[in-house]
Amino acid sequence: MEQLYVIKIGGNVIDDSRLLGNFLRDFSSVPGKKMLVHGGGKIATQIGDNLKIQSKYVDGRRITDDQTIDLVTMVYGGLVNKKVVAGLQSLACNAFGVTGADAMLIPAVKRPVKEIDYGWVGDIEPAAIPVDRWMNMMAWGVTPVVAPLTCDKEGHILNTNADTIAATLAAALSQRFNVSLYFCFEKKGVLEEVGNEDSFIKEIDDELFHKLKSENKLSAGILPKLKNAFDARKKGVNDVCIGSSENLPSLIRHSEGTRII
Amino acid sequence: MEQLYVIKIGGNVIDDSRLLGNFLRDFSSVPGKKMLVHGGGKIATQIGDNLKIQSKYVDGRRITDDQTIDLVTMVYGGLVNKKVVAGLQSLACNAFGVTGADAMLIPAVKRPVKEIDYGWVGDIEPAAIPVDRWMNMMAWGVTPVVAPLTCDKEGHILNTNADTIAATLAAALSQRFNVSLYFCFEKKGVLEEVGNEDSFIKEIDDELFHKLKSENKLSAGILPKLKNAFDARKKGVNDVCIGSSENLPSLIRHSEGTRII
Repeated sequence: MEQLYVIKIGGNVIDDSRLLGNFLRDFSSVPGKKMLVHGGGKIATQIGDNLKIQSKYVDGRRITDDQTIDLVTMVYGGLVNKKVVAGLQSLACNAFGVTGADAMLIPAVKRPVKEIDYGWVGDIEPAAIPVDRWMNMMAWGVTPVVAPLTCDKEGHILNTNADTIAATLAAALSQRFNVSLYFCFEKKGVLEEVGNEDSFIKEIDDELFHKLKSENKLSAGILPKLKNAFDARKKGVNDVCIGSSENLPSLIRHSEGTRII
Repeated sequence: MEQLYVIKIGGNVIDDSRLLGNFLRDFSSVPGKKMLVHGGGKIATQIGDNLKIQSKYVDGRRITDDQTIDLVTMVYGGLVNKKVVAGLQSLACNAFGVTGADAMLIPAVKRPVKEIDYGWVGDIEPAAIPVDRWMNMMAWGVTPVVAPLTCDKEGHILNTNADTIAATLAAALSQRFNVSLYFCFEKKGVLEEVGNEDSFIKEIDDELFHKLKSENKLSAGILPKLKNAFDARKKGVNDVCIGSSENLPSLIRHSEGTRII
């Protein structure tokens, strides 16, 4: 099967134009088929503050009310997505910006209200990912750049976790490709000691994950990322790695980052 | 040749959710291949005001400085484009939002500075429109929804006139399709008397255009629209019409609007 790289970048890269420039250069040099999934970055909060839209959080999770969904639709789907696309185009990478709403590439439902009403937040329906549409799109030689938005069947735009989008797409496309999935963030990998960059773990399996978790050694930020990473690995993604956005070539060469085994 | 409808809507539709809902219902019922090109609307100015970004105009044309290009990238490429896409998806129309930057679907250059420096404004390069890419995209059954943004080869996003985008795409695609181009706006058509809705002209040819122009009977708003309309007609577009966004089915049936002959 042909190789496909699914690479996810988070806020730290998006908020720093030097980091973003370097990352896009590295990304554009990745050979063969690839796609980029981007998160939001602090820019949404910043613009929201200027527009006097207050970010609401419950248990560390942003609540997406009417104003906030408009805000993230503008910032993630417009500003961030098109800047990344234009930047890649200038590097001769034929980028094509999409959200999950476009051609319903990522079918989702509004998260059901239980204890918390998350508002306009999307839960992806993995079994409904239209793999053929993704194949068609990639067959004409474009590199998808995916913003973390989806929509439901009623036409509501939904704020959707970018890590989960990357993991779900990687898993769905592993039916047709040999998929490598890289979660790029601000640290060198999963750290055994929070705050100590040199303590990054080279390989992590289920057993080590549960051990570290039970010892409370994993930060709140890395837990959902690891859950997505293990999910993808179990669903057929060949190579899953968490590492620094500054080290993309080394992540691909397997000389840096934390590998899920 | 197969029929293709290229339909352009302007700000009045985008700013009014009732009008937009009705229009999208009409649009989704247009049979066969179609694409929608949308303008910006007052929402960009409104959000810009809230962000304290001052709109600058020279000779009635907005100057696109650094802040303004970010603003229109957010609003046109994100908020407006994705709302239209999600709305059409809920009407079972397989919409796919794009800008000219995505896959360089609309190659452009930054407008050269002569008497006026328009800032980040794009001039389309009609001969460079990648017709095969458009064909590929439409071949997989999606309805493009085009936001009025392009980018240059250096990766700068450029604010680009939506009427010109519609006319240029219609002309380029008339190599492969039997194209009908509809400019939908807030009036019933080209009015012989400014302000009198009942005075709309059923058909206009070059001669009548120049007569009305020399008699100063054409408003400043309709002039560039008419120029784009005549351009498209001369470049092979089969049917070109200017009319009300509330009358799309009648424009298609040739019972309303001003036809360019």
